[in-house]
Amino acid sequence: MKIALLQTAGAGSVSGNLDLLEAKAAEAAGQGARLLIAPELFLTGYNIGARTRELAERAGGPAASRAAEIAARQGLALLFGFPEAQGDEVYNAVLFVDRDAARAVYRKAHLFGPGERTHFARGPGRPPLIELDGLKVGLLICYDVEFPEAVRALAVEGAELIAVPTALMAPYSIVADTVVPARAYENGVFLAYVNRVGTEGDLTYVGRSALVGPDGAELCRADAESETLMTVEIDRQSIARLREINPYLADLRRDLYP
Amino acid sequence: MKIALLQTAGAGSVSGNLDLLEAKAAEAAGQGARLLIAPELFLTGYNIGARTRELAERAGGPAASRAAEIAARQGLALLFGFPEAQGDEVYNAVLFVDRDAARAVYRKAHLFGPGERTHFARGPGRPPLIELDGLKVGLLICYDVEFPEAVRALAVEGAELIAVPTALMAPYSIVADTVVPARAYENGVFLAYVNRVGTEGDLTYVGRSALVGPDGAELCRADAESETLMTVEIDRQSIARLREINPYLADLRRDLYP
Repeated sequence: MKIALLQTAGAGSVSGNLDLLEAKAAEAAGQGARLLIAPELFLTGYNIGARTRELAERAGGPAASRAAEIAARQGLALLFGFPEAQGDEVYNAVLFVDRDAARAVYRKAHLFGPGERTHFARGPGRPPLIELDGLKVGLLICYDVEFPEAVRALAVEGAELIAVPTALMAPYSIVADTVVPARAYENGVFLAYVNRVGTEGDLTYVGRSALVGPDGAELCRADAESETLMTVEIDRQSIARLREINPYLADLRRDLYP
Repeated sequence: MKIALLQTAGAGSVSGNLDLLEAKAAEAAGQGARLLIAPELFLTGYNIGARTRELAERAGGPAASRAAEIAARQGLALLFGFPEAQGDEVYNAVLFVDRDAARAVYRKAHLFGPGERTHFARGPGRPPLIELDGLKVGLLICYDVEFPEAVRALAVEGAELIAVPTALMAPYSIVADTVVPARAYENGVFLAYVNRVGTEGDLTYVGRSALVGPDGAELCRADAESETLMTVEIDRQSIARLREINPYLADLRRDLYP
């Protein structure tokens, strides 16, 4: 299965970002991708202060409808970040929508720093595991993946690919370069980490989007600044083979570390 | 506090290794080190098959007595691997012995591969946390550190330095280069990873011993082949400062990931 990673600064407006999503979905589909992943808060921008609440939508709102149309028209699944309005709360969420309109939402559990805690409520639960033509895909957002517990839980539940829209800023490149490959390796999973680039206000995003294999090898790696669409073939059969070599899930001493 | 890391192929015999330990303890003490860390199964060699059982000693045996003498004479603490005999069992263990004869033993909980499972019993418990002039030191051995749960548990219990004698062989350099820095960073601890070099039978050790800081930065890093003694100053005050920047222990959603 081919997975497409969209590293982007975004277009600067919701309608512009939906147009960008459509253009990149067409490009990704043209390369045979089954899933296109865009960054955290792709729909609106990440560092937009009080505009976050103004632009928040329901998971079944107009942006979600437009995304479903794009997925159906281009024949692939989409995953992207958006501020989700639910009652009085706003969540830092991602929307997954497939070409047949199957849909899932995950709300970021680990909010990062005072900025996010000002604008968002904490996600109430663990992420869903979704299926894409049989491939089990776990969803996390940015800071979530830095906690080994979150990735381990998904791997134990059977995730084969962990998809992580993110907005990683300077000076935290170590997360993209070191923590992300460690997470894939220590769990024997594919991990797609899809970051923003450019600047928004006082934040400079550090790119370095990557798809890492279950052996920790980088199947693709973007630089720190470029807008880029990377399409990578992943082989789910390799997971079982690599977990025989690195049997972390089997060898963990659950009697000592429950 | 200065910590010394001894990356070595060993001297080829128990008495030779004890002589080597004394020489390196003198050198480390001369550089002001308070603790000298040697690799996994330093006393006997790692890949010695059935000789492991023949050479196994009690934790209060002659090698431990000699080590206590060295620690007292050189005025520092020692940590090194040895095969521990206890009743009918043999454990892949490390001995910590301070200059005042204070002593601790940890038995490897996560045995690596069929080789280790042939020669060793699984350690029955979690590692101890020892105190060295107020510094809280957690002990792990090789494969243990590859499980995020083991390092997290020590960090939560208050470990400031995790000391990891190891025998990491090809083709697993990713553990030394990527997993070890991730462990230090995601827990905000110092982590000393002290490996063997050279070959024993069909195994080639990959060196790359390192002391990594709580920000994931490498305070020292050995190459893949050289015998070397590295002495590094660590500042325990920096832990609190870095945990304000990277508050992983505080931010983990224990309600979702108990």
